[in-house]
Amino acid sequence: MLKPPEHQVAGHQAREGQLGPLVDGSGRFYKPLQSDSRGEHEAAFYSSFSSDPRVPSHVRCFFPGFHGTQLLPASDGSGERPHLVLDDIFSSLLRPSVIDLKIGACTWAPNSPDNYLMKCLRKDRETTSLTLGFRISGLRVNTASGFYNPDKNQVKSYTSSDVKRVLKKFVSSNPDSSSDPDCAYVAVVYGGSEGLLAQLLELKAWFEDQTLYHFYSVSVLAGYARDEVGRIRPLVSLVDFAHVVEGDGVIDHNFLGGLCSLIKFISEILIDPDEKFSSGGCLGESKRTPQLGNEN
Amino acid sequence: MLKPPEHQVAGHQAREGQLGPLVDGSGRFYKPLQSDSRGEHEAAFYSSFSSDPRVPSHVRCFFPGFHGTQLLPASDGSGERPHLVLDDIFSSLLRPSVIDLKIGACTWAPNSPDNYLMKCLRKDRETTSLTLGFRISGLRVNTASGFYNPDKNQVKSYTSSDVKRVLKKFVSSNPDSSSDPDCAYVAVVYGGSEGLLAQLLELKAWFEDQTLYHFYSVSVLAGYARDEVGRIRPLVSLVDFAHVVEGDGVIDHNFLGGLCSLIKFISEILIDPDEKFSSGGCLGESKRTPQLGNEN
Repeated sequence: MLKPPEHQVAGHQAREGQLGPLVDGSGRFYKPLQSDSRGEHEAAFYSSFSSDPRVPSHVRCFFPGFHGTQLLPASDGSGERPHLVLDDIFSSLLRPSVIDLKIGACTWAPNSPDNYLMKCLRKDRETTSLTLGFRISGLRVNTASGFYNPDKNQVKSYTSSDVKRVLKKFVSSNPDSSSDPDCAYVAVVYGGSEGLLAQLLELKAWFEDQTLYHFYSVSVLAGYARDEVGRIRPLVSLVDFAHVVEGDGVIDHNFLGGLCSLIKFISEILIDPDEKFSSGGCLGESKRTPQLGNEN
Repeated sequence: MLKPPEHQVAGHQAREGQLGPLVDGSGRFYKPLQSDSRGEHEAAFYSSFSSDPRVPSHVRCFFPGFHGTQLLPASDGSGERPHLVLDDIFSSLLRPSVIDLKIGACTWAPNSPDNYLMKCLRKDRETTSLTLGFRISGLRVNTASGFYNPDKNQVKSYTSSDVKRVLKKFVSSNPDSSSDPDCAYVAVVYGGSEGLLAQLLELKAWFEDQTLYHFYSVSVLAGYARDEVGRIRPLVSLVDFAHVVEGDGVIDHNFLGGLCSLIKFISEILIDPDEKFSSGGCLGESKRTPQLGNEN
């Protein structure tokens, strides 16, 4: 009964000969523990986090529920392997539109070994992580004719200006069109008291205060779909905790900064989807900041 | 009439054979333009910023007033050289206590050349920049017996746990004592409607929104002293703009994150100067987050 989750938009996908997560169609998500230390590390995080009384319940809602680990046949056919048993976040949504946003200018913890740091730093510079404080790791948008689902290489090559356009496509009925995204669902997905922006602001308030964990290389997974009565429901969850480290009494300024940058993008799209009144870099040459140069 | 500013706690100090800033004792601060591009870059920033109508006046107060450049005899005896003419921020304060806090986990802009990036990254890792999102670059605290003024090497070697102690010493009457800092001035310097925390929160609100500039390697310079009627007056200013780059429509998530981290430290000291009720990493072993390890 186990199958690859249809809403997975980043990371390794389960298929013949490849290890990936599985869902059971009745609300559980099974993530295989990788053989290196990452799997154990993520399991240790879930175990610690799920039993930590200092995490308020309104924050806990932003994390998948954790139900221990379980031996299951691996998707790559290599036999049984321990899997994290998690709640399938989007199981209540039919054919959801999903975007994976990896938060933080740095995806590596300060105490990382040099080779790991350099590998991550290269990716952070090649993508928008360093400039925007986050990067898009994948997305798919439900359309009348199927899914808009740009491939990995296209997603990797997004520039800073692409990102705003893609965040508009995510809430548009014409994401696959070359004309401007129509932002048909912007008010109901990004706006309102249950919208994405409201949820991100709630997360932000916690990150301004919490000093328990630093969430390196963690993603905000945002999705939406119509529920049984045809109403669009947005959902937000944090995912991928293989590189979380202890906070040691310090806030997670790296995650918080990136989250605030994402919040600013979403706010701008919500306020002015057509960019008729946009400020900053879009004021036109005459009003722009003089070029400062980057000599260092 | 020009002399080195008594409140300079970081950077090159003007003296025989060494280039450094000078003050005229009547409210002006003269900063020599370095021969490399940094000097011109800082002048370009001041020129752009001081004439930018998009900067609100309550934010402009956190920046030294700029009055162009002027040829002046350099402090190193090398002859005349252009100097930035700035307001001497602390000229109204007699014998101020001053701390220089360099904000941001990364002190280098994303588009920096590799060699500059690696040099900065090494310093950011060796100091508290990467872990705390800021580092102390220097301080001096006025005491009954003179100034507490730890030397450069001591300041460079501060660890994360040193930083909280030093932020307490900064508002204590016994900073040079080996016993616990008494935090004698914490309420009046960090607290209140004109205190450091209130000022940093005002800056934070702007940084959540502004997309004009990214302030790499910029410091919060905080100071306080008694005024004519014996009342303690705190002051905050941003300084050192040689590595500012254009924001290009994105918030400065690096500076904002570091600023929020500093705000959290100051809030904690203000709420609980003796750490009787401290949370997070200080709850004692039994309640601490299980060690997650850092294998990556």
